[in-house]
Amino acid sequence: MPFKTTILVRFGDLDPAGIAYYPNLVNYLHESFEDFFAGAIGKPYPEVFRDGIGFPTVKVEMDFLSPVHYGDRVEVDVTVEHLGNTSVRIRYEGSVKGKPVFRARNTAVVVNMRTFKPTALPSWLRESFERALG
Amino acid sequence: MPFKTTILVRFGDLDPAGIAYYPNLVNYLHESFEDFFAGAIGKPYPEVFRDGIGFPTVKVEMDFLSPVHYGDRVEVDVTVEHLGNTSVRIRYEGSVKGKPVFRARNTAVVVNMRTFKPTALPSWLRESFERALG
Amino acid sequence: MPFKTTILVRFGDLDPAGIAYYPNLVNYLHESFEDFFAGAIGKPYPEVFRDGIGFPTVKVEMDFLSPVHYGDRVEVDVTVEHLGNTSVRIRYEGSVKGKPVFRARNTAVVVNMRTFKPTALPSWLRESFERALG
Amino acid sequence: MPFKTTILVRFGDLDPAGIAYYPNLVNYLHESFEDFFAGAIGKPYPEVFRDGIGFPTVKVEMDFLSPVHYGDRVEVDVTVEHLGNTSVRIRYEGSVKGKPVFRARNTAVVVNMRTFKPTALPSWLRESFERALG
Repeated sequence: MPFKTTILVRFGDLDPAGIAYYPNLVNYLHESFEDFFAGAIGKPYPEVFRDGIGFPTVKVEMDFLSPVHYGDRVEVDVTVEHLGNTSVRIRYEGSVKGKPVFRARNTAVVVNMRTFKPTALPSWLRESFERALG
Repeated sequence: MPFKTTILVRFGDLDPAGIAYYPNLVNYLHESFEDFFAGAIGKPYPEVFRDGIGFPTVKVEMDFLSPVHYGDRVEVDVTVEHLGNTSVRIRYEGSVKGKPVFRARNTAVVVNMRTFKPTALPSWLRESFERALG
Repeated sequence: MPFKTTILVRFGDLDPAGIAYYPNLVNYLHESFEDFFAGAIGKPYPEVFRDGIGFPTVKVEMDFLSPVHYGDRVEVDVTVEHLGNTSVRIRYEGSVKGKPVFRARNTAVVVNMRTFKPTALPSWLRESFERALG
Repeated sequence: MPFKTTILVRFGDLDPAGIAYYPNLVNYLHESFEDFFAGAIGKPYPEVFRDGIGFPTVKVEMDFLSPVHYGDRVEVDVTVEHLGNTSVRIRYEGSVKGKPVFRARNTAVVVNMRTFKPTALPSWLRESFERALG
């Protein structure tokens, strides 16, 4: 079961064509990732980050399937696709009223924020990610 | 020969780890695209856009190879990889002092901004893009 | 009674010092303004905007009283301070767990988005703003 | 004599009305501040920041005098208005082809980034700021 969250399209996300500017939709992936921690991992990402674990993105692929408009509520399904030793690959599927608007895959490395070196996921975090494997 | 431009990393692009936040690096792709019009197409993108032609992104793939830091000057090589009937695929390669920092590929559809329908590139624009084919 | 809304501080809002970058806090004013429409005016701002009425800011004054951190929930009080013929001045007071973090005043002009000329507030909108006068 | 810099209006700065979204114009103040360091202080702000000195904004006042459009080159005059013990107030005046588009005043505190406490400007920096006093 993917984790589900909803993101409201804000005025500041729009371009002069009146639709969401695509780098801002990429930002929605990170916001969904943050919501995933609060909702599915059980520890908000700000706390994880302050504990010294970061997830810098090393790869993103994203398809924009349909324009996203002002005021839309984008429902995002977050699925852990792959769990490596020191990395995680997550799939994001965005839709508005059931209509797909984007589909993305993000690979992030797990990093010790003090050394900036890759590190294995702590076991409690690994277990939570495993439960979210799609 | 790819078109080359340079983007200065600004304070507002940074994350709490002191490196560029990845959606902001995606925004650099669009800025490089804008510079490509001014420098390689011969007509600034704002004028093209006001003439009613837009290039909404339908797909982006991006690899983040090395962190980008505050004050870095990211040199971006812009190469037209493929020119379809109503679409264009562009490769972006970013480096800082010769060290690769990102590599991306963006597919955009050519759209008539009044109808929001795909449209063929006007011939003068097609010729400029063809000259930039890598 | 001011209208109240809450804004969650996102990773993308932060600067390298780990606190919210101040132009992003200015963006919170607009997000609060949008929430004010949905919650206090009774018509979401995206609909008002699509009906052809915009509120471009002509003046903003903002005091940053205390740093805003990652994961903070900023509670924003929105008060209509002054209602002119074709303008509105709104006060925003942000706090985190009761501690004031910012205080701002924004003056916006009511504009017909087709002509870009100032226009009087439609009466139904004026009545809603009047009820929100602080 | 104010320090002068120029900022190019990017696609990502625009709102659905096709003009710069005002929090993005606030961001221009910071970009102008960064350019001021490189051009008038003689040490780029990223280096000053890495040396452990920050300038968090405590107050901003900004008047938006005329819309800023896509592709505009905003010329910004940067004037040091007041130099306190541990603070600095700077005036920013933006214009496009000689037409004023914004006018702002920003007060920032000088902070030791390791302690987050206000600190006196180092003397070499104070001298550079004094030379830029308007």
